[in-house]
Amino acid sequence: MERITIKNVAEEAGVSVTSVSRVLNNRGYISDELRNKVMSAVKKLNYTPNEIARSFFKNETRSIALIVPTINNPFFSELAFYIERELANFNYHLFVGNSLNNSMNEKEYLQMLDEKRVDGIIVGSHNMGIDEYDKIQGNIVSIERRISEKIPMIESDNYRGGKIATEELIKLGCKNIICISGNKNVDAPANNRVAAYSDVLKDNNMEEFIIEIPFSESEEEKLYRLNKLFHSNINFDGVFAGDDLMAKYIMNIANENNFNLPSDLKIIGFDGTSLMQNLVPELMTIVQPIERMAKTTVEVLLKLIKGEKVKDVYTLPVKLKAIPTSK
Amino acid sequence: MERITIKNVAEEAGVSVTSVSRVLNNRGYISDELRNKVMSAVKKLNYTPNEIARSFFKNETRSIALIVPTINNPFFSELAFYIERELANFNYHLFVGNSLNNSMNEKEYLQMLDEKRVDGIIVGSHNMGIDEYDKIQGNIVSIERRISEKIPMIESDNYRGGKIATEELIKLGCKNIICISGNKNVDAPANNRVAAYSDVLKDNNMEEFIIEIPFSESEEEKLYRLNKLFHSNINFDGVFAGDDLMAKYIMNIANENNFNLPSDLKIIGFDGTSLMQNLVPELMTIVQPIERMAKTTVEVLLKLIKGEKVKDVYTLPVKLKAIPTSK
Repeated sequence: MERITIKNVAEEAGVSVTSVSRVLNNRGYISDELRNKVMSAVKKLNYTPNEIARSFFKNETRSIALIVPTINNPFFSELAFYIERELANFNYHLFVGNSLNNSMNEKEYLQMLDEKRVDGIIVGSHNMGIDEYDKIQGNIVSIERRISEKIPMIESDNYRGGKIATEELIKLGCKNIICISGNKNVDAPANNRVAAYSDVLKDNNMEEFIIEIPFSESEEEKLYRLNKLFHSNINFDGVFAGDDLMAKYIMNIANENNFNLPSDLKIIGFDGTSLMQNLVPELMTIVQPIERMAKTTVEVLLKLIKGEKVKDVYTLPVKLKAIPTSK
Repeated sequence: MERITIKNVAEEAGVSVTSVSRVLNNRGYISDELRNKVMSAVKKLNYTPNEIARSFFKNETRSIALIVPTINNPFFSELAFYIERELANFNYHLFVGNSLNNSMNEKEYLQMLDEKRVDGIIVGSHNMGIDEYDKIQGNIVSIERRISEKIPMIESDNYRGGKIATEELIKLGCKNIICISGNKNVDAPANNRVAAYSDVLKDNNMEEFIIEIPFSESEEEKLYRLNKLFHSNINFDGVFAGDDLMAKYIMNIANENNFNLPSDLKIIGFDGTSLMQNLVPELMTIVQPIERMAKTTVEVLLKLIKGEKVKDVYTLPVKLKAIPTSK
C-alpha cells in the first residue's frame, strides 16, 4: 500500500514541502493563493496528512478549557479575562464552561481532555468526586479547589486573608464579629479564611459566629438570608463577608436599616476585583492577586503540558485594602 | 492504491463497524476497553479515517467562538454566561476571546472559522474593517455591532431605550440633561440611544450636551473625566449614562461632591445586568433583555450553520427600571 506523502502534494501544488506543511498546520502567514493551491492538491490526491492523524490521536489542539461555577461573577470574569490574555500570549485558545447548575459541562470537558480534544483543563469549580478526578490522566490545574494530590493547585493565602481581616475588625473596635462562610462541605481553601477568623477570635477571647451561605445559592436567596440576619436578635458590629458582593449586599441592607456606616458596622469583603474596587470605593476588602493567580495557573499548566515538574500547591499573597475613613 | 477501510479496523479489533465509528466520532458511551481495542487496530493498520479528513476540510467542530471587548464587564460576562448555557444545550462548546487591546484575537478566530476549526463566530466587538469581514465566508452573527449586510445582527432597541430614559428624566423634572455616549466613530447601534436623546430634547426645546467617553478607555480615565465634569462650569441635574458602571461612577462622584441623590441629580444607566441590579438597587436603568439576546444569538447562529434563512436584524425590546423613591 503506497501512501501519498506531503512531497506528492507539494509537487502537485507546485510549492515547497515547507509551504504545504505551513498550510496544513496553520503556521505563519498564509496567502489565500497558497492555501487554495495546497488544498486543491490535497483534495485531488485524497491526501490525509499524518499531522491530522497524529493530531487526532495525541497531538496538541492549542485549546484549554476553563471550568468556573459561573463566568457571571466579578471574581471569575476577571480571572477568566487574565487567563485568556495569558493563554493568547502563548497561542492557546480558551473554552469557558459554567458548571453551576450544569455538571455535564465538567464531565464533557474531562472527556474532551481524555480524547485529546483539549490540551488541558483549568478547574475553578468542581461537582465531580475526587475519585473520578483520580482516574483522569491529563493536564489539569485547579484554582482554589483541592481536587487530588495529583492535581496542582493555585490558591491565594486564604488563612492570612482571614487573619488580616479579623484582626483589622478588632483593631477598628468591633466586639461582635460575624463571619459569612461559603459551603463548608466543599473542600475549598476558602475554608481557611474561616479557620483564621476562629483562631483570631479565640486568641482574643471573643466569641465566633459563623453563618454559612453557599456560593451556589441564588442572589435572591442570599439577600433574603442577609435580610433575616438583620431582623434577628443577633448583635454584631463587624462582618467578615464571604466575598465582595456579599459585603456590598450587607452594606446596602445596613443602610436600609439606618445603620451608620462605618461607625455602627464595619464590613470587610474578599476578592478585591478591579470592578468592585471601582464601583464601591468605600468597600474594605482582602485583595486576591487575581492577575498573578491567572498567570501562575497558565504557567503551571504549560509546564505540565511540556512534561516539566511542577509544585503541588502555589499559595499567593493577599493584602488588605483598608479605606481612609476607617483609619 | 488500496485504502484501509473502517471494515478492516473493525475486523482487526474484533468489534462491529458501528463501534469503531462511535469511538472515532466520540459518540455515546465508550468503555476504555473498546477504545483501546479500536485505537490499537487503528494504529496497527495505520488507518486515517475518512471522518478525520472530512472533519479537517468541512466537518463540524461543535465549537463556537465569542469575541467580546472584555469578559471582565458585567454586561459581557452575563451575555457570555447565557450564550454558553444555551450553546451547551445544543452540545456546542464556547471559546471566549477578549479583543480589547488584542486585535490579533479577532483575526485568529476569523482564521479558525475560515479553516473550519470553529463552526461559527459571535462578534460582540470588532476592530477589523468591514471590508475584511466582507471577504469572510462563514457563519457569523454579531451582537450590537453592524458589521456588514451579510452578517445578521442581534441588538436591543437602543433608540427606544434612549427615548424612554430621556423622557423619564424630563418627567422627573430635569432641566439640564447630559448624555454620556460611547465612541461615536464605531458603527454601533448604541449610537441610536444618543440619537433618541437628541430627538427628545429637541421636541422639548431643551439643549443637548453630549460627552463622549469611549468604552475602550480605562476605568481610571473614565473616572478622571467624570471628576473633571463635576468641577467644570457645566450645570446639570440629569444624566443619561452610557452604561450602568458609568452611572454608578457618577453616583459616587456626586455623593463625594455633596449632591443629594436623587433630588439634586437624576441618573439613568443602561444594561440592567442582574449583577448591577443586585449590587446597586437604587440605580435607575434601561434594562436590556440579555438572556433573550443570548438565546436569539444562538438560535440565529445555529440556523446559519444548518443553512436556514435568517433575518438581517433582530431588535429586542428594552424596559425602564425606575426606582420607587423617584416616582
